[in-house]
Amino acid sequence: MSPMDPPRRAFRFERLLAGDRWARDVRVEVDTAGRIASLRTDGAPDGCETVTGWAVPGVPNVHSHSFQRALAGLAEGRGPDSFWGWREVMYAFLERLTPDDVEAISAQLYVEMLKAGFTCVGEFHYLHHPPGGGRYEDPAEMSRRILAAARTAGIGLVHLPVVYERGGFGGEGLEGGQRRFRMDLEGVGRMHDELAGDFAAAGAGLGWALHSLRAVSEGSVGRVEELVGGSQMPVHIHVAEQEREVRECLAARGARPVEWLLGRAPVDERWCLVHATHVNREEIAAVAGCGAVVGLCPTTEANLGDGLFPLGEFARAGGRFAIGTDSHVSRSPVEELRLLEYGQRLVTRSRAGLGGGGREEGVLGGAGGALLAHAWSDGCRALGWEGGGVEIGKRADVVVLDAGHPALVGREGAAVLDSWVFSGTETPVRDVMVGGEWVVTGGRHVREEVVAGAFRASAGATPTES
Amino acid sequence: MSPMDPPRRAFRFERLLAGDRWARDVRVEVDTAGRIASLRTDGAPDGCETVTGWAVPGVPNVHSHSFQRALAGLAEGRGPDSFWGWREVMYAFLERLTPDDVEAISAQLYVEMLKAGFTCVGEFHYLHHPPGGGRYEDPAEMSRRILAAARTAGIGLVHLPVVYERGGFGGEGLEGGQRRFRMDLEGVGRMHDELAGDFAAAGAGLGWALHSLRAVSEGSVGRVEELVGGSQMPVHIHVAEQEREVRECLAARGARPVEWLLGRAPVDERWCLVHATHVNREEIAAVAGCGAVVGLCPTTEANLGDGLFPLGEFARAGGRFAIGTDSHVSRSPVEELRLLEYGQRLVTRSRAGLGGGGREEGVLGGAGGALLAHAWSDGCRALGWEGGGVEIGKRADVVVLDAGHPALVGREGAAVLDSWVFSGTETPVRDVMVGGEWVVTGGRHVREEVVAGAFRASAGATPTES
Repeated sequence: MSPMDPPRRAFRFERLLAGDRWARDVRVEVDTAGRIASLRTDGAPDGCETVTGWAVPGVPNVHSHSFQRALAGLAEGRGPDSFWGWREVMYAFLERLTPDDVEAISAQLYVEMLKAGFTCVGEFHYLHHPPGGGRYEDPAEMSRRILAAARTAGIGLVHLPVVYERGGFGGEGLEGGQRRFRMDLEGVGRMHDELAGDFAAAGAGLGWALHSLRAVSEGSVGRVEELVGGSQMPVHIHVAEQEREVRECLAARGARPVEWLLGRAPVDERWCLVHATHVNREEIAAVAGCGAVVGLCPTTEANLGDGLFPLGEFARAGGRFAIGTDSHVSRSPVEELRLLEYGQRLVTRSRAGLGGGGREEGVLGGAGGALLAHAWSDGCRALGWEGGGVEIGKRADVVVLDAGHPALVGREGAAVLDSWVFSGTETPVRDVMVGGEWVVTGGRHVREEVVAGAFRASAGATPTES
Repeated sequence: MSPMDPPRRAFRFERLLAGDRWARDVRVEVDTAGRIASLRTDGAPDGCETVTGWAVPGVPNVHSHSFQRALAGLAEGRGPDSFWGWREVMYAFLERLTPDDVEAISAQLYVEMLKAGFTCVGEFHYLHHPPGGGRYEDPAEMSRRILAAARTAGIGLVHLPVVYERGGFGGEGLEGGQRRFRMDLEGVGRMHDELAGDFAAAGAGLGWALHSLRAVSEGSVGRVEELVGGSQMPVHIHVAEQEREVRECLAARGARPVEWLLGRAPVDERWCLVHATHVNREEIAAVAGCGAVVGLCPTTEANLGDGLFPLGEFARAGGRFAIGTDSHVSRSPVEELRLLEYGQRLVTRSRAGLGGGGREEGVLGGAGGALLAHAWSDGCRALGWEGGGVEIGKRADVVVLDAGHPALVGREGAAVLDSWVFSGTETPVRDVMVGGEWVVTGGRHVREEVVAGAFRASAGATPTES
């Protein structure tokens, strides 16, 4: 280091998850790029910041439509009694959202995510244009607002602009709210070029997203590899979320959605198949075999009545999966993992973790630890994010659980992570750092009030009697 | 009122749930017994305490084994992979619990329940005796500790001492941990006599519980009506929680558990059938027809791999149901209701609320409101508790939601209750009163730290590396 370099930050974690064990008194140095530069367990503390509690990696959130946070709780009436009815409510809702609204909503969402223990988010971004489908003066306006929100909150971001070309398997045109989504493959490429500099400077990532087989032509699905090329960027797609999609794909193409996709595109470990709810035995084996990550969104899949992913069979086949909060009826990693596990236990009528597919050891050996292990590792893979573990070279994204919290009192070993996941809804998360910077301390976000204020102003309404 | 009577307490609620609408500026007087003496919407505020936010009835928790709170998160390893494996862990755990432990654990549990919006609890109490099965000097020692914990926390209590006679359908003896549970019908009657004065003075209720058809003889089930008699006390029983119980009952008695029970005892609206998970079409109709309340414990039923109750069919048949936190992996009413609803949506693959059985209107017309309506009304019926609504003569048990909380910003009408149930895990509950006394203010319980301190001391362990 030259005399001009800013000093590295150094922390001493009293208890830190290292592999499958709790390590004591680990000294961690973080460089100016927010990455872990050194880890030492020898030597006395030497003035660096001591952090009590149970320190674990921050959790990646692989699937988000940030604007939907403002809709949570508004679509529970008797009208929208199916996914498709909900989608109509969502389209009507988004018609009035301005860039300021989206930035305020996203910042609030990201603050909530951080407080619950998510430290990076994959933004499946399709709200590109103004209502009616024109263009903002800056065509990448909405994407810049997502970046701004992520920077305000201090969360890690992997931005996935979405290809959205048509309204259905028959090549239907875009209607109503969908006109804000129009984007072709080349358009996403231009957005990458436009945004690359600012995103890199902010430490944010970029990737590709295809909305779904309904919304993207066969030709475009076939060409995506050519555009992604050797970039190693992640590629995400919604697939097989609803039974209706499976029926329509079979009728239009003679194949199930996941089956068709794996036959048309070189799906591999850079890909994230979001939901993949309706898959048969062959598809399960094929996805597990190709190394793609399945992006599960349990609270959204439940809220929308999608169905249960066959987790046990998939995990036993060595499949990779991670979690996302999608429509943001939940903003908590442990609520997602808990519901994922409970769905399996309810239908298998057993307590075998991960539907019988759990294989971790040590302090990851309980159901909670096994679920988190997938979320950390497979989630970071799905986002191309170098995190998910406190290791040299990885981003210093760390969540600290309060050892004295009533949910964790008397807990040690595997019971710490099991209790974080399964014991109660009051969060034991006390502090969160992203890239070595504290963004949550003492259970509060460093900009919590100003972000909430902007969110309230955006919502605008004063409650009135109804 | 004579000059010697203490003054009534008076509150002005800016928004109060009245029937199926939000009423504005309601002046409520509470008498010295903690019951609502008057409700007025006319007239200007006259110095009584103003309460902002959305005020709703406190939620009853119909099923609790308080000591199990200390076990939450400890039984998620690969060992206990069935209900029966979990039960072994639970028996081993309870062997070392002293009356001080049970009081400390229960008080902490009840504080957590209050903070989440439960205002009364039905304690299905079977931990009567010391380890090994002797007797405490005061045979009702453990029950008195439950009352003490409820008073420390300030929660309403309906105490249900449990009859537990044998280890299985074949009349097996009690073994191991079960020896702390031994109690026959007459023993419960004597406990009622012993406790009646103190419980009445504390405003707590009493009732009857039969552990299960495994643990209570056919003769005792037949005699319970004789002992309950005209008292109108509630009668609770675990029934049909696991498929193994159904098989054993069919083998031993030639009938399914709920079927057998309804044929042997005059089950009616004083009864609460806890779980009733495994019921066929005829049983569903019979339970709905007799007016009994089904006590659903969604997070516990999921955690233990019991299965999904057929809520849609039952609700469409006019059945009554309420919620309990049972093993206390959750301590939140909205987490229970949310999981109850999500289980239905996942298996029906639709968004129809309550599996298609919701029938409320107005601000209760969304899925959240409909679920709460059952919890309030059927839950209070199951406990014989005069609550569940802010009405003259009922107990002044009120939960106040912060209208400015990010989960509730911009919400009005039915969306308020829908958002409380479905939007996120950070609770918007700000204040809670029980019998007109504030026990939670600004999101903190009035005795939170001292109760947590006793809980930590009881847990005892300083976390160590494992």
